Amino acid sequence: MAAADIGLIGLAVMGQNLVLNMSDHGYAVAVYNRSRDKTDRFLSDLEGERRIVGTYSVEQLVGALRSPRIVVLMVKAGPVVDDYIEQLLPHLKVGDILVDGGNSAFTDTNRRVSGLAAKGILYLGTGVSGGEEGARHGPSLMPGGNKQAWPAVQDLLLSIAAKVDGVPCCDWIGPDGAGHYVKMVHNGIEYGDMQLIGEAYHLLHAGLELDADRVGRIFAEWNRGVLDSYLIEITGHILKVRDADGEPLVNKVLDSAGQKGTGKWTATNALELGVPLTLIGEAVFARALSALKDERVRAAEILPEHDGRFHGDRDAHVGFIHDALYASKIVSYAQGFQLLRAASREYGWSLELGNIALLWRGGCIIRSRFLNNIKQAFDREPNLENLVLNDFFRGALARAQAGWRKAVVLGVELGIPTPAFSSALSYYDAYRSAHLPANLLQAQRDYFGAHTYERVDRPRGQFFHTDWKRELESQAG
Amino acid sequence: MAAADIGLIGLAVMGQNLVLNMSDHGYAVAVYNRSRDKTDRFLSDLEGERRIVGTYSVEQLVGALRSPRIVVLMVKAGPVVDDYIEQLLPHLKVGDILVDGGNSAFTDTNRRVSGLAAKGILYLGTGVSGGEEGARHGPSLMPGGNKQAWPAVQDLLLSIAAKVDGVPCCDWIGPDGAGHYVKMVHNGIEYGDMQLIGEAYHLLHAGLELDADRVGRIFAEWNRGVLDSYLIEITGHILKVRDADGEPLVNKVLDSAGQKGTGKWTATNALELGVPLTLIGEAVFARALSALKDERVRAAEILPEHDGRFHGDRDAHVGFIHDALYASKIVSYAQGFQLLRAASREYGWSLELGNIALLWRGGCIIRSRFLNNIKQAFDREPNLENLVLNDFFRGALARAQAGWRKAVVLGVELGIPTPAFSSALSYYDAYRSAHLPANLLQAQRDYFGAHTYERVDRPRGQFFHTDWKRELESQAG
Repeated sequence: MAAADIGLIGLAVMGQNLVLNMSDHGYAVAVYNRSRDKTDRFLSDLEGERRIVGTYSVEQLVGALRSPRIVVLMVKAGPVVDDYIEQLLPHLKVGDILVDGGNSAFTDTNRRVSGLAAKGILYLGTGVSGGEEGARHGPSLMPGGNKQAWPAVQDLLLSIAAKVDGVPCCDWIGPDGAGHYVKMVHNGIEYGDMQLIGEAYHLLHAGLELDADRVGRIFAEWNRGVLDSYLIEITGHILKVRDADGEPLVNKVLDSAGQKGTGKWTATNALELGVPLTLIGEAVFARALSALKDERVRAAEILPEHDGRFHGDRDAHVGFIHDALYASKIVSYAQGFQLLRAASREYGWSLELGNIALLWRGGCIIRSRFLNNIKQAFDREPNLENLVLNDFFRGALARAQAGWRKAVVLGVELGIPTPAFSSALSYYDAYRSAHLPANLLQAQRDYFGAHTYERVDRPRGQFFHTDWKRELESQAG
Repeated sequence: MAAADIGLIGLAVMGQNLVLNMSDHGYAVAVYNRSRDKTDRFLSDLEGERRIVGTYSVEQLVGALRSPRIVVLMVKAGPVVDDYIEQLLPHLKVGDILVDGGNSAFTDTNRRVSGLAAKGILYLGTGVSGGEEGARHGPSLMPGGNKQAWPAVQDLLLSIAAKVDGVPCCDWIGPDGAGHYVKMVHNGIEYGDMQLIGEAYHLLHAGLELDADRVGRIFAEWNRGVLDSYLIEITGHILKVRDADGEPLVNKVLDSAGQKGTGKWTATNALELGVPLTLIGEAVFARALSALKDERVRAAEILPEHDGRFHGDRDAHVGFIHDALYASKIVSYAQGFQLLRAASREYGWSLELGNIALLWRGGCIIRSRFLNNIKQAFDREPNLENLVLNDFFRGALARAQAGWRKAVVLGVELGIPTPAFSSALSYYDAYRSAHLPANLLQAQRDYFGAHTYERVDRPRGQFFHTDWKRELESQAG
């Protein structure tokens, strides 16, 4: 066999599926996995004519590749990536390319890109989204890092990426860890989307007392409108699946959610950059709270229940919940893109926000019709300050807000938690408030800590201090 | 002059006031500041007979102290602390003690405690709360680190600390950076308290259209009940102070809040430990949003305003807002103590939660009657899982919850943001939910990522996977 076009390390399911995807597009791939068995099993299970070759050491893998060598790492994020880089380095030449397709922390990728650039190795941190299905048939790809590598990998990545209206869901993101950063925010947004769907489901099921079948039909219907998206679609599917005893299977699933690092990282980075990413923050915390299953079961026995039951117009409330989900989703993406904008400025990345929306339209978990609207918003106004100010979304929020408020009130009155719906509404109401109560807060800080304050009737940057207690006493006296 | 009892570096206002406080209690203090002028000015401004001596180098400072030497650092957190440690080290002997009284990151303190222990130097990271006033007349002190140092500094710290009912607001916290950790959480709780007061003020002022005088009287009245606390008291004061033109001064203060690191650190650490600290998270984000003043002013012109005006029983709603503030405050402290409990377990610190409540009762910004109730709750049940489960707080929440819900509805309907009130309510409703919609979320993760799920009818730790799509197709066919 001639030299392979590309090498891949790590034959877990994501790695295997990416190899098959590349092979489908005519690439010859050399593969390596730490355990030889996995490699052999993968090769023996292959069907059809494929140019895939197994190798049994990192050296052999690199030796099987044409120059410049391109090696894709599909291994666990963290120290394992550094281990493989160390193993690979002695066998690489200047101009060779490493592509990390895992969920690495963008700060790790920052470090690796610059460390390897000093050695002449071109490093790309590439977000890969879409799970097994995406990897197999077309993921959303977010490559960033050393741009010198882009010409050599561009054709490969564009060909294996998902396509929407013929446009690949892959585009150059930016330098350093920008690709992994954008993937991280994507995952944070995914946390938000899933939390929002969960709250809608909770209000429909526990609030309006609709059974899984009925709720499944509602999601299927919503999937034909503005909420059209992969996650709404699969929610409709899930709610229809029956367990062996004929009960909806979803009712048998334990309500204790796990989490990987990326949602948490997104919220942490937002705190770091001072960007109010409230909805994703609530979504991450909601998973943490769900994980306290035993504690909640005990608490449910002790705490006074709010004994509201729904007495109202069910169909109207289904519409309100739809509007709450749609409006909250707009706020969530508005917050997410505010974070991307802040990161672009802070890290000097020149992210193209519209293009990022474009490459999330297919392949990945958050794919939706909605992302076209975001792309259009940034096409019209490349410097758009906030998505909620764009005509399309402004109008959508104006139409949705009455229902949104009623859905939140429903949860409040029935004792059904809606942390993300509520948080989104508070954000919306605060963002369009020319006056917030932070004047009192600044006065408090000046009172107890002499932190000083600015005034509404003086230019910014002039700071004042009042001895509030003395002032009060002198005015009283 | 004989050898001084203690040395202090850093004569900003906090440092100066601590020196005076120690001097009041009979201690002889040697002081050093990087700029000689400040030292001279401080010494020349001294009144009365005091044993305070100025020194003009770190070496001279250490030389002025009796053994074991105790040096308190009151300098900017971060690299400055490490710089001074480096400067001090050549002049210190085994058994000498360094006390960092700044707002250092607890992770830095972890590192310094162990690094210096290896050199025989005993390092204490000590949270100091109470601002200028507290430092001068009695702060809340949270010492942690190398416990070998405790006997040598105990008398000093207890004597300068605030006293409540004769009990000093100072107690040994734990090893490593535990003292600075507890101070960090204290500051996070302070963010929460201030945000809650801000929301109450906003609802009263913008919602019920009560003027600053009237709102000030309401806070003064609240300060005589269960909300009795320093922050409620000073809010009452602030609202009464008039500007030169007779207008309430608070109306002239710019509503753009600054923040230091500790609130942000608290939320970040909660994400790290997986503890749902939603209220403080919202409070930190609310400050970030307030800081976007210009953007908000522009948004207020563009976004459709929700044109609700209040038509209802004002006095009743004042009561609802009171109840919302009280109930949300209970949730905020419940979350904060959950975080302390998780940190204690994670870091192996054996924190005594009741004692921590006790030492926040005086000296510091969050001091309140309420902290006695917390102390009593942990006295009764040292292993209390969550404050909301304690009889006292459970009863308080039961009585407050109807009003709490009405106050949130008021904000929702009038378009006044209540991120912390709402978030607290969602937490309360979720915490006492035996069933949350995380079952759907786990099904989604299993659908698109084969993450597997547990079942309500099987033991924990057994994991199941369903091919949901295939299952649906086979059931439909």
